[in-house]
Amino acid sequence: MDRPSLAVMRPSLGGQVIVAIVGAGDIGRGWASLCIAQGWPVRLFDHETKSLVEAHANVITRARRLVALGYADAEAVERGVANFNVSRSLLQACAEAHWIIEAIHEDVIAKQKMFEAFESVGHRARIVSSSTTAIPIKDIVARCRRQDRCMIAHPLNPPELIPLVEVVPGPHTDGALVELLKGWLRALGRIPITVKRAKQGNVAGRIAAAVWREAIDLVLTGVVDVADLDRAVAVGPALGWAAAGPHLTYHLAAGGRGVEGFIQHLLSTFESTWADLATWQRLDPEQQHRLVQALSRAYQGDIDTMRDARDAKLVAILKALEEVRRERESLGVATEDEA
Amino acid sequence: MDRPSLAVMRPSLGGQVIVAIVGAGDIGRGWASLCIAQGWPVRLFDHETKSLVEAHANVITRARRLVALGYADAEAVERGVANFNVSRSLLQACAEAHWIIEAIHEDVIAKQKMFEAFESVGHRARIVSSSTTAIPIKDIVARCRRQDRCMIAHPLNPPELIPLVEVVPGPHTDGALVELLKGWLRALGRIPITVKRAKQGNVAGRIAAAVWREAIDLVLTGVVDVADLDRAVAVGPALGWAAAGPHLTYHLAAGGRGVEGFIQHLLSTFESTWADLATWQRLDPEQQHRLVQALSRAYQGDIDTMRDARDAKLVAILKALEEVRRERESLGVATEDEA
Repeated sequence: MDRPSLAVMRPSLGGQVIVAIVGAGDIGRGWASLCIAQGWPVRLFDHETKSLVEAHANVITRARRLVALGYADAEAVERGVANFNVSRSLLQACAEAHWIIEAIHEDVIAKQKMFEAFESVGHRARIVSSSTTAIPIKDIVARCRRQDRCMIAHPLNPPELIPLVEVVPGPHTDGALVELLKGWLRALGRIPITVKRAKQGNVAGRIAAAVWREAIDLVLTGVVDVADLDRAVAVGPALGWAAAGPHLTYHLAAGGRGVEGFIQHLLSTFESTWADLATWQRLDPEQQHRLVQALSRAYQGDIDTMRDARDAKLVAILKALEEVRRERESLGVATEDEA
Repeated sequence: MDRPSLAVMRPSLGGQVIVAIVGAGDIGRGWASLCIAQGWPVRLFDHETKSLVEAHANVITRARRLVALGYADAEAVERGVANFNVSRSLLQACAEAHWIIEAIHEDVIAKQKMFEAFESVGHRARIVSSSTTAIPIKDIVARCRRQDRCMIAHPLNPPELIPLVEVVPGPHTDGALVELLKGWLRALGRIPITVKRAKQGNVAGRIAAAVWREAIDLVLTGVVDVADLDRAVAVGPALGWAAAGPHLTYHLAAGGRGVEGFIQHLLSTFESTWADLATWQRLDPEQQHRLVQALSRAYQGDIDTMRDARDAKLVAILKALEEVRRERESLGVATEDEA
């Protein structure tokens, strides 16, 4: 097979990745603004023409907003904007693309058909990735002959700000192409991880679900107010995890003895808490209503203003962490967790 | 009763809070370095004299380290150091104190006796707080006559860096004294929340337990490596929660429709994941062993070096968030979540 070496395809080595994004909803727009902010040529397609017109303006706004936030280079963004097109057909979007990103609605049949179509229109694509949150990769590629280049690349929201991308290979995905995609994602300033075994919710979705269930339960049972719950997580455990991740947090929490010391000292406390955590699996309509009411009382401000504040904080945290990394690297004291 | 007004006692209005800390383990030392860094007079006592000698030097090191990290004012720290004493007796430690902080080992009988003793030695104390992680406040104060001034003030580790302090009043705690303590904690740069109803693990401990169980399960079942799990949480959900908290995160995640829109759109995905999350309540010795092995492989570096890196990141994040808050305040666009 005519396959260029990984090095040739790495944009960090001067190459440019032509990206086709199929699906112009919120996630597709996020991917587009992210790639544009790196100056990469992007073709965006959606079967709904109306969505596409609105998306074009929105993507450019989002990409330029990254410059305003100090999170992207103005020159790169304008180069990306100049090379950004909405396409009239799936073929036009995909024909030249090195990377096809599927970001349509969460419907397994629709995604299967789309991945089948990519086999006709995406001959040049090295990677075809799905942004799915909940559909297993083996189902998405069920109608594909070329499964080697297919995988999930699942971003969080908003994709242009949260660095994590979960890469989930299918049973027939080529490991070298997983590495290729991870290289591209890093070139986009993303931090990819590999989900080695498909599992409902991947990694981040499961952790988030565990947190949200308990967070809902603590509010609905009157243990804590919405705002205090959010504050507690934000300036408590989340702060620690943002600096070190959960496992490393506990590895560092028992003097010099590592996680073994932590287990000796605190496992029984965790076990008591595990036995007491919320385990319900459905949020009934009455509970939904109470949750919505509680949140509406806690956060009466304008949603766009609060989202701007959140985004400003996200970028400030990311820049601060990058600064620490650079400082420690220059001192020669970078540690494993920074790999 | 001879009770000064709250305003008189607020250090932000010029008063100084004299603090007695009983128990010179890791948490007691953390409280001491935090109070010293604010220039407050601290008396530290422990029944084990050996622990106390070591603690004295360690507390000063930790307080001065905050200056090196750019997180405390050198002048205030040196004022605190000059007013820092280890005491020869419980009476000597507590006699003049406005605030007695109990930080002895997690033993309900020992804590009951200690709180009983505070009634004889701590006449001037407005607040007597326990740092307990797992013992209910009603049990700790079971032998006290003066329960109005007693409550839990539970810090996270390290107390001088993580801003969250969970305040848990007992059934007879005076609400005005809860507010007094929260004012003192804010003067120490802490962010207090109120736990309205005693519950195993309070808020942060329950959220942390939910995360750690799922994080352990994902590693032990081979879904993800330790380092990728930590990275995923750190640059994924934890980053979002540090910027906005879990409830606000979802309130902002569905365009302008708030959490109601989010529930409509994504509740079924969360429900599928809730049904699939780990629910085990014990980590058996074989699993403990595998977890320790996996962490040792992932993090081979020196623990102190990794802890320094973590602390540098914590402080960088905190300073970045403070900077955003100040900027937005000066623009007049602070939002509810910043209250």
